[in-house]
This record gives sequence, C-alpha cells and structure tokens, in this order.
Amino acid sequence: MQVKAVVLLSGGLDSSTVLYQALQDGCECYALSFDYQQRHRRELEAAAAIASAAQVKEHQVITFDLRQWGGSALTDNNLDLPSDRSLGEMSQNIPITYVPARNTIFLSFALAYAEAAGAERVYIGVNALDYSGYPDCRPDYIQAMQEVFRLGTKQGREKEAIAIVTPLINLKKTEIIQIGNQLGVPWEQTWSCYAGGELACGVCDSCRLRFAAFEELGLEDPILYAQR
Amino acid sequence: MQVKAVVLLSGGLDSSTVLYQALQDGCECYALSFDYQQRHRRELEAAAAIASAAQVKEHQVITFDLRQWGGSALTDNNLDLPSDRSLGEMSQNIPITYVPARNTIFLSFALAYAEAAGAERVYIGVNALDYSGYPDCRPDYIQAMQEVFRLGTKQGREKEAIAIVTPLINLKKTEIIQIGNQLGVPWEQTWSCYAGGELACGVCDSCRLRFAAFEELGLEDPILYAQR
Repeated sequence: MQVKAVVLLSGGLDSSTVLYQALQDGCECYALSFDYQQRHRRELEAAAAIASAAQVKEHQVITFDLRQWGGSALTDNNLDLPSDRSLGEMSQNIPITYVPARNTIFLSFALAYAEAAGAERVYIGVNALDYSGYPDCRPDYIQAMQEVFRLGTKQGREKEAIAIVTPLINLKKTEIIQIGNQLGVPWEQTWSCYAGGELACGVCDSCRLRFAAFEELGLEDPILYAQR
Repeated sequence: MQVKAVVLLSGGLDSSTVLYQALQDGCECYALSFDYQQRHRRELEAAAAIASAAQVKEHQVITFDLRQWGGSALTDNNLDLPSDRSLGEMSQNIPITYVPARNTIFLSFALAYAEAAGAERVYIGVNALDYSGYPDCRPDYIQAMQEVFRLGTKQGREKEAIAIVTPLINLKKTEIIQIGNQLGVPWEQTWSCYAGGELACGVCDSCRLRFAAFEELGLEDPILYAQR
C-alpha cells in the first residue's frame, strides 16, 4: 500500500521542493497550509497552485489568527520588515520575522491531520542553514518534536510514531534549487516574499535569499520582482 | 516582578482549578481557550465566566476548525458519544472522544502566546489518572513537550525555557475537587459535559466522572443535569 504523507506547504521554494520530493519518494500526499493572517497571505494562492500542479490527494488550509498577540513582523503590519541585513547576518540572529512557536503550531496540526488520515509521515521544509536564526528550524528541535509525535498520539503509542521528514535540513538554498529543478518544481508558481504586494518586493530577507541563490547558479528566477 | 503565566482554560473542573491555583501561586494570568468547533462549544461560555470571576489579566480565544479531517467523536456529530463505559474502562483504553494531537495543538498556541506576552509559565490541567486513556495527558508526553518549549523558541534558546506546570497530573478527581474547594473555584460556572445541550447530559464519560467524584465526597454538584 502506498505510504501516506502530510506535507506542510507554504507555497515557497522550500516547501514546494519538499512536496515534489515526497511524491518522488512514492507518497500519497496530503498538503497542509495555514492562513494565520500573515501579511504575505498571497503565498496561499501559490500553495493552492502548487498543490494542484502536483496533483496531491488533498489540500487543506487551516485558518486562525496569530495577530491576536503580536510579536512578529510577519503578523504585525506596524512593524517594518528587515531589508538591509546581509546574508551573513540573516544566518546569525533571530530576526523580527520570527513568529513565536510557528513551526510548533504547524507541526501540531500536521500531526493531527496525519493521525486522522492514517499517514505515516509528515514532511517539512525546514532548513538549518539559511534560517539558522530560527530556533524551530534546527535539528535538535525537530528531534524533540519527533518525541512528541511518538508520545502524544494514539498511533505513536500503539503502533509506530508518525515520522518527521526533513529533506532540506542540511542543504544550502542553491542545492535546494538544484534538487527542485531535477524534480520539476514549477518555480513560476511559487511565492517567497514576506511583503503583501502584488509582485515580490525584491528587498525583504526572503526575496534576497531566493534571488541570490538563483543568481549564484546562473539561473533565471522566473517570478517578477517589483525591485531588485 | 509578578510571574506571568498562560493558563489553558477549557471551562471544566480541572482547568478552572488550575487557573485558581496559578493565581494562588502569585501569577498574573493570561487565560487561553479554543473554539475548534467542538460539539460542546458551550464550554466557552463557562471559560469566559471563570476567566471573569478570576479576574485574569487577559483572556484570548483562538478559533480554528478541527472538523476538517474528523477522527473524533468530539468534533464529528455523526459519531455517538460513549455513555456506557465503566469508570474503570475509561482509564484503560483510548476512547473515541480522543481528538488527535489536541493537547499538542493547545500547548503550541500556549507557547506562542507565552513567548509573545513574555510569560515564564504555561499551566495545563492534564490528569494522568482519570484520563490515562489519552496519550497526551501522560507525564512522559509533558516531558517531551517541555523539550520543545526549550528548543523551539527564542526565549528558550536565549534565556530560560517557558515551564509547563501540571498541578493536577497525579491527582484523582476527588482530590481536584477538594483543592478547588479550598481555592474557591465557582463550580456552578464550570462546564464538563461533552454533549452540546443546554443542560449537562449526565451520561457522557465526562459528566459521569464529575458526578461520581462529587458524590464520593458527599458534596452537591451545583450544576443541573438533564438526566442522572
């Protein structure tokens, strides 16, 4: 029987590559996205387009409001997005775009969905290099969540724990793009920008990381930028 | 400075007692409830009444829909609630009222709220005796979540981890009621019933556990039951 997998899909480069990797691994995929009133809710359209292109079995969107208690530039329009940090700085400090416990919330819903759907795996596109500033992208954190997956569910207690799969955790952005190219990820349908505009801003951390990686590979990023 | 604490408050006996315990411990309390389209959403009114009676600093309700993928009698009106299990059976098997990963989702939001509010503690009324059928109420699970609290947040990485506090984990229901009595919990404002009626049904697992405990103590449960 085909392995079932829940795939966390934001619609960006990383999660889209992970979805195509899960398909390549032979999984029947249940994509999961979140509308948490992030200022870049535009990414949800990208997630839907990617899920459709990849012909997933199901795509669910969970809606809640993380603006309620603030604490991040991604959910608070009164805070400015950083646009002047060097790529080196990005990988050092926990930035203002950090959303408290976001991956913990995302993985918790993925766990619930996986158990309800009878899935054996949860794929997540965390990356410990480019986002090493984020505490909830690091291997020791994923290990701790794996224990929660084992002990916190009926499935984990009675059978085998649902496995957290992190294919990108040790890869550089350029390596992710190379893998995505091999897998045929439709980059033109992805969305990375943190700002809420019609076009990718080209100056936020996320745009600049993406753009720099395509450039380093001598490849054309097929999306349009307002500025770069 | 006063210790800040997020308190998970469903509006039932246990979480209400925990809230009063947190106040007794000297905490400034931020209560957190969830509208997940549970059939007993009536409990949210109880949570609001208890939060108000306890004069918490703030009470937030996070809304999302756990009916999307089913998997529990608490979120699927097509499944019958159990009403004929003995109290012994309740403490043995994982029941159909188990909601996949519910406490993991609740604790994840509590973690986010705590970090955004600068709180040092999260109180949760899990109980390993009466609800020992639920995997996400047991001490080893709480321990695993504590590791996630340490590794998954800026606060846990840079300072001290937000602490999960479980004052009821080893208590019997009768002992919880005795503590609640000492703390002055207004039982008449609490809500335990899993069914969605105007009055507590008196026959679901939750009603019967509650009623049996008051009876064992020779006390009057001040809420009205449709049947008992």
